[in-house]
Amino acid sequence: MERILISETPKFIGQKVKICGWIDTVRSHGKIIFFDLRDRSGTAQLVFVPKNNEETNDLAKKISSEWAVEIEGEVKQRPEKMVNEKLATGQVEISIESLKTLAESEVLPFDIKDLNASLPTILDYRPLTLRNEKIKAVFKLQEEVINSFRKTLSEMGFTEFQSPSIVPLAPEGGAELFRLDYFEYSAYLAQSPQVYKQILVGVFERVFTVTQAYRAEPSMTTRHLCEFTSLDAEMGFIDSWEDLMDVIEAVTKNIFADLQKNRAEELKIFNPSMPDLGVSFPRIKMREAQKIILERTGRDNTKEPDLQPEDEKEICRYAKEKHGSDLIFVTHYPTKKRPFYTFADPKDPEYTLSFDLLYNGVELISGGQRINDYNKLVDNIKKWGNDPKNFEYYLQAFKYGMPPEGGFAFGAERIIKQLLGLENVREAAIFPRDMERIDQRLSVLQEDKKKSKKE
Amino acid sequence: MERILISETPKFIGQKVKICGWIDTVRSHGKIIFFDLRDRSGTAQLVFVPKNNEETNDLAKKISSEWAVEIEGEVKQRPEKMVNEKLATGQVEISIESLKTLAESEVLPFDIKDLNASLPTILDYRPLTLRNEKIKAVFKLQEEVINSFRKTLSEMGFTEFQSPSIVPLAPEGGAELFRLDYFEYSAYLAQSPQVYKQILVGVFERVFTVTQAYRAEPSMTTRHLCEFTSLDAEMGFIDSWEDLMDVIEAVTKNIFADLQKNRAEELKIFNPSMPDLGVSFPRIKMREAQKIILERTGRDNTKEPDLQPEDEKEICRYAKEKHGSDLIFVTHYPTKKRPFYTFADPKDPEYTLSFDLLYNGVELISGGQRINDYNKLVDNIKKWGNDPKNFEYYLQAFKYGMPPEGGFAFGAERIIKQLLGLENVREAAIFPRDMERIDQRLSVLQEDKKKSKKE
Repeated sequence: MERILISETPKFIGQKVKICGWIDTVRSHGKIIFFDLRDRSGTAQLVFVPKNNEETNDLAKKISSEWAVEIEGEVKQRPEKMVNEKLATGQVEISIESLKTLAESEVLPFDIKDLNASLPTILDYRPLTLRNEKIKAVFKLQEEVINSFRKTLSEMGFTEFQSPSIVPLAPEGGAELFRLDYFEYSAYLAQSPQVYKQILVGVFERVFTVTQAYRAEPSMTTRHLCEFTSLDAEMGFIDSWEDLMDVIEAVTKNIFADLQKNRAEELKIFNPSMPDLGVSFPRIKMREAQKIILERTGRDNTKEPDLQPEDEKEICRYAKEKHGSDLIFVTHYPTKKRPFYTFADPKDPEYTLSFDLLYNGVELISGGQRINDYNKLVDNIKKWGNDPKNFEYYLQAFKYGMPPEGGFAFGAERIIKQLLGLENVREAAIFPRDMERIDQRLSVLQEDKKKSKKE
Repeated sequence: MERILISETPKFIGQKVKICGWIDTVRSHGKIIFFDLRDRSGTAQLVFVPKNNEETNDLAKKISSEWAVEIEGEVKQRPEKMVNEKLATGQVEISIESLKTLAESEVLPFDIKDLNASLPTILDYRPLTLRNEKIKAVFKLQEEVINSFRKTLSEMGFTEFQSPSIVPLAPEGGAELFRLDYFEYSAYLAQSPQVYKQILVGVFERVFTVTQAYRAEPSMTTRHLCEFTSLDAEMGFIDSWEDLMDVIEAVTKNIFADLQKNRAEELKIFNPSMPDLGVSFPRIKMREAQKIILERTGRDNTKEPDLQPEDEKEICRYAKEKHGSDLIFVTHYPTKKRPFYTFADPKDPEYTLSFDLLYNGVELISGGQRINDYNKLVDNIKKWGNDPKNFEYYLQAFKYGMPPEGGFAFGAERIIKQLLGLENVREAAIFPRDMERIDQRLSVLQEDKKKSKKE
C-alpha cells in the first residue's frame, strides 16, 4: 500500500490507508489509546483498540513521543460533537489496524510540544526542538520570504548568482572579519556579497543572491549573529536612486502578501499584526526626520549623524499616523558615515543617495546608489584610507563602463524576527552561530579545539 | 521617455524609443558609424549619421567598446536583404537621434567579444570577461539548473533551508577542511551540509539546500574547486533506497528539459549534445559493472574497491548501447569506502545501499541510504575511528526517532562542466577559488596577506 499524507486522510473516509510520521502525543484511556501522529503535512488522531495479537498490543503500549511509526488503518468520520475544529483533519480519526516501528525514541528531556525552556536550552537541543510546531513554522515562513524575494526579482529581469564566501579582503576593512588559513595564505569570510553583486551589474545589469554573510563582532546582543543569510540585490541603468526604493517596495509588499497567501497556517501560530503598507512607503531625509522628531517630542537630535534607536521608533509612529504605513524610508545619511562606494547627492555632497527602510522602529533594508565613475571611486578609496591596489579586481568592473547603479540588502533572520516579534534574532536562525556557540557551546568543545588549532 | 529593452525594439518599428546598454562593437563606414548595443535582453544594431551638432558628432566618434550609453532613436525596418538572421533583432536597426554617455570605458586589454585568451588571463580579468556572451551564458545555464532543482523538489514537498558554513567539526574528519579563527576557538568551513540536512529530516521529512561547500585539498586539477555550490537533498520515510534514485531521475530529467525550454538561446551557443535519457536510468551494482567491463574489454578490475576512470567511461558506453541512456546508476559501493553513516545492504553488509549517477563517464550525483538507527550509528562512528562525543549534536536527531532516510548531492559547477563539455571546472564557477587564486592571484597579494596574518 502507498503511503498517503496525513492532510489527505479526510478524502479517504471509510477506506484503509497507510500513513507515516512521528508520535506527537499519547493519551491512554484504559485499554484504548489515542495517538496524535505528525507528518510534514499535518497531524491526525489515531485510535488503538486492543487486538488479538499480544505483540501489537505490547507495542502500542510501549510507543511514546517522537517514535517514528508506520500505521495502516481505516479513516473514520468522527461524530459531530467529537470534531476537533483546531485540527485540519479534525473531522476524522484513523482506527489503527497495524502498527510498525520505524525508529524508537529515547525519553524526551522535556516536553517539546508544550515547550517551556530557555533559549540556550532550546539551542542546545536544536535538532529536537526544531520539531516544535512553532519553532518549525519560523523556518517555513523564512523559506517563503526567500522564495518571494526570488520570485519578485526574477520577474523583474534579475539574474540570481551564487556568491563566494571566501574572500581576499573586504571593501570596508578587516576589523569584523573572520580570518582563515588558506593554504599558505590568509583569507577571510565575506561580510557581504557587495563586491560581487556590483561586478555583476556590469554583466547581467540586474542581479541578486541569497548568501551566507559573516560578522566577527564580539557581540552577544539579541540582534547579532556571526553568520546570517543575506538577501542582496543590485541593478544598473537606474534613472535615479528612487528606482531602487521602487524595487524594494515591490519586494517588501510581495513578501507580506506571499506570506499571507502561502503560509497562512504558520502565520496564524504567531498571529502577528501584519504591517500597514499605505499607498506607498513615505521617503524622508534624515535631517527632516530629526526635525519632525524635535517637533513631536522636543528631543533635539538634529545634529546627530544618524538616527538614534528612539528616533527610529518615533519616525515609524509618524509614518503610521501621517501616511498609514508601518514602513518608512529614511534617506540622505551623511556621506562620512557610509561606505566609500556610496553616491553623494550632487545637490548636497555632505549627504548620500542612500536609505534605510525602517519597520516597527528597526532598520530592515539598507541600500543606495553607488559611485559608478571609475576615477571618483578610486579617489574615494583613497579618501577612506585604503589603497586602490587592494581593489584592482573590483575596480575592473568600473574601469570598463559601469552604468549608474545601486542596490540593497537585508537579512532573512531580521525580517522574520521583526514580523513575528521574536525577542532574539537567534530564534530566526535555524542553526545560529554566535561567540559562544557553533551548534554546541564552544566552551564544551574547547579542549578539542585547542588540540586542533595550528600553532 | 521610458527605457525599453533591446529585445522589444522589433515591436516599435517606426517609433522613437530609448534604449541603454554597452557598446559591443563599432564599425565606422566613413561618416556613418554602426554600433552594436548590448543590454541584458540582447543586442541590436544602431546607425549614426552625422548631425548638425558638433558635440554629438565628436561623441559618436569617440565612443568605443564597453562604454555604457543611453540612446534615443527611431526603430527602422531593415531592407529584406539586410536582415541579420543571427540576431533576434536582426530585422530592425535603430537610427540614433541622441546619444548620452553613462560611463566611459578604458581601452580593453584584449577583444572580449572574440575572446582568445588563456584561462588564467580570463580569470585575471573576470569582471570584464564575464561580459563575453559565451562565458555569461554559462551562468545563465547554471541559474536554470538551480531553479529547476528547486522547482522539482518543492513540488515534491521538500523544504528549502539555509545551511550554515561555519562548523565545529566535519563528520568525515579534518584533513581537507579550512580552519578559521573563531574568537578564541577554531572553527571550520563545511565540506557539505550533510549534518544539517540529516538533522532536518527529523523536522521537515524532506529538505534541500543550495549552499557553498569547501574543500581544502591542495589540488590544481581541472576538476577541483576550493569553494563550490552544492545542491543537496535528503528525505525521510523512504520505503527503499530506490526511492532516492527515483527522485534523482525526476530532478535530472527536469534539469535537462528546463534548460532546453527556458534557456535554448544560451544552450545554442554551446550546442551540446543533450543526453539520451532512455526510459529510465539503468541501475547496476558496482561488481556487476566490473564484470560487464571485463566481458566487454578484457580489463579485469573485478577486485578493485571502486570503478576506475576508464571503467566509468566504459559502463556509460554500455548504458548507452543497451539501455539508450547516457546516464547510469552504479550502486553497492564497498562499505569500507563510504562514510560511516552509509547504510550497509542487509543482504550483503560488505556493500552499501549507495550509488553514483554517472554521466558521460563522470560521477555526477552521489548518494544513498543512511543509517537511521541511533545505536548502529554510534557503533559505526566508533568503528570509523571517531569519538561519538564529537557527534552529540548530530546524534540527537537519531536518538529521538529518525525514520529510514537517505539523500544525494551534486555540484552546480560539475553538471554544467559535463553538459557543456568545458575543459576546466573553474570555467563553471563564476568567481572560482583555488590554491592559487581568490579573485586575484594570491602570490600577488602575498605580502599584504602576511602582514594581516595573525601570529
